[in-house]
Amino acid sequence: MTNIPAGRFITVEGTEGAGKSTCIQHVERWATSRSISMLCTREPGGTPLAEQIRDILLETRTENVDSLAELLLVFAARAQHLNTLIRPNLEAGKWVLSDRFTDATYAYQGSGRGLNIQQISQLEGLVQGSFQPDLTLLLDLPVELGLERARQRSQPDRFELEQEMFFEKVRSGYRERAAAQPDRIKIVDASKSPEQVSQQVLDILDQWLAGIG
Amino acid sequence: MTNIPAGRFITVEGTEGAGKSTCIQHVERWATSRSISMLCTREPGGTPLAEQIRDILLETRTENVDSLAELLLVFAARAQHLNTLIRPNLEAGKWVLSDRFTDATYAYQGSGRGLNIQQISQLEGLVQGSFQPDLTLLLDLPVELGLERARQRSQPDRFELEQEMFFEKVRSGYRERAAAQPDRIKIVDASKSPEQVSQQVLDILDQWLAGIG
Repeated sequence: MTNIPAGRFITVEGTEGAGKSTCIQHVERWATSRSISMLCTREPGGTPLAEQIRDILLETRTENVDSLAELLLVFAARAQHLNTLIRPNLEAGKWVLSDRFTDATYAYQGSGRGLNIQQISQLEGLVQGSFQPDLTLLLDLPVELGLERARQRSQPDRFELEQEMFFEKVRSGYRERAAAQPDRIKIVDASKSPEQVSQQVLDILDQWLAGIG
Repeated sequence: MTNIPAGRFITVEGTEGAGKSTCIQHVERWATSRSISMLCTREPGGTPLAEQIRDILLETRTENVDSLAELLLVFAARAQHLNTLIRPNLEAGKWVLSDRFTDATYAYQGSGRGLNIQQISQLEGLVQGSFQPDLTLLLDLPVELGLERARQRSQPDRFELEQEMFFEKVRSGYRERAAAQPDRIKIVDASKSPEQVSQQVLDILDQWLAGIG
């Protein structure tokens, strides 16, 4: 049997309606089946303070939100999440699974809103140093299909109210990052049937674990 | 009569109980007497979003607040305040008076909490570029006297619950900045009587205006 290494950090990324929640359930069941103790968390959020910042970010408001202020809020929540929850758990040998992490910042704030990538990179360096996820599952699907699924589910929040063109840019941003870091970021074709998506996720996890175990 | 220049930014700084609110009233009356149109604001805060961030910063909580997260929250509020309120007003020719600005970050988070000054300086550069107040009034008084005044006034918030030693460091941090930037930061001896403090403030404003008018 494969030797299970301690303290690995997995993230799940994707645009609205890509099926992140279902994917996270697949990863959790996979970990349980291998007796891996894994903490499941999310961004922005993951601690009470970071969740308060999440609420501020997602709130629909009339005030024009300065894009740099938004970016700083995202990294404030990330610093709290990383330093008080993620790192301590990884150091204790636990695995951590996060619904979104810094790839989302590059995709949403960078590619989507057009914020200066150098600013994002500067803040990433300040908050994370060289810290990166060990594995990222990117759920990729056509924007139209994702938005259709998301709209069936709930009322749109401030980000979901963005135009379709915005989400096209976000998707492109994600795909470019996956192309640039193929060892870490694995693309899952989320337009397939639930069974096929599930199989892709499990195959990626098994292959990856075999490579690091 | 002195020619009144357009769009000047004045800040008031000092430790708890130094008399900032009273000082701000003096500056406002002084401006009114010279027909200067001045917007009065504060940090952290000044806009609805920035005030929400202020609430998060000042809330008493059991969760350990990561010091870098705190710093990023402070600068997120500042970016929103600067880009959506301060700069537009200055550009429209109005004067702006702020109860605290970045000197407070150096004094409280830097000298007080011992955060890396380089990190503060990096974020200051990111958010402000070379933007600085035109004049800063630093209300300086012994820490013990300030805390005594503050305690008579209201319930302590998260910052006011800090030990006296913390406020000694904050005061030193403020004084060091004033010594390094004497042209911009003017020290007011806030341990004096209300009349004497008021006179110091008015003298500083008159001298400064004569210099720039």
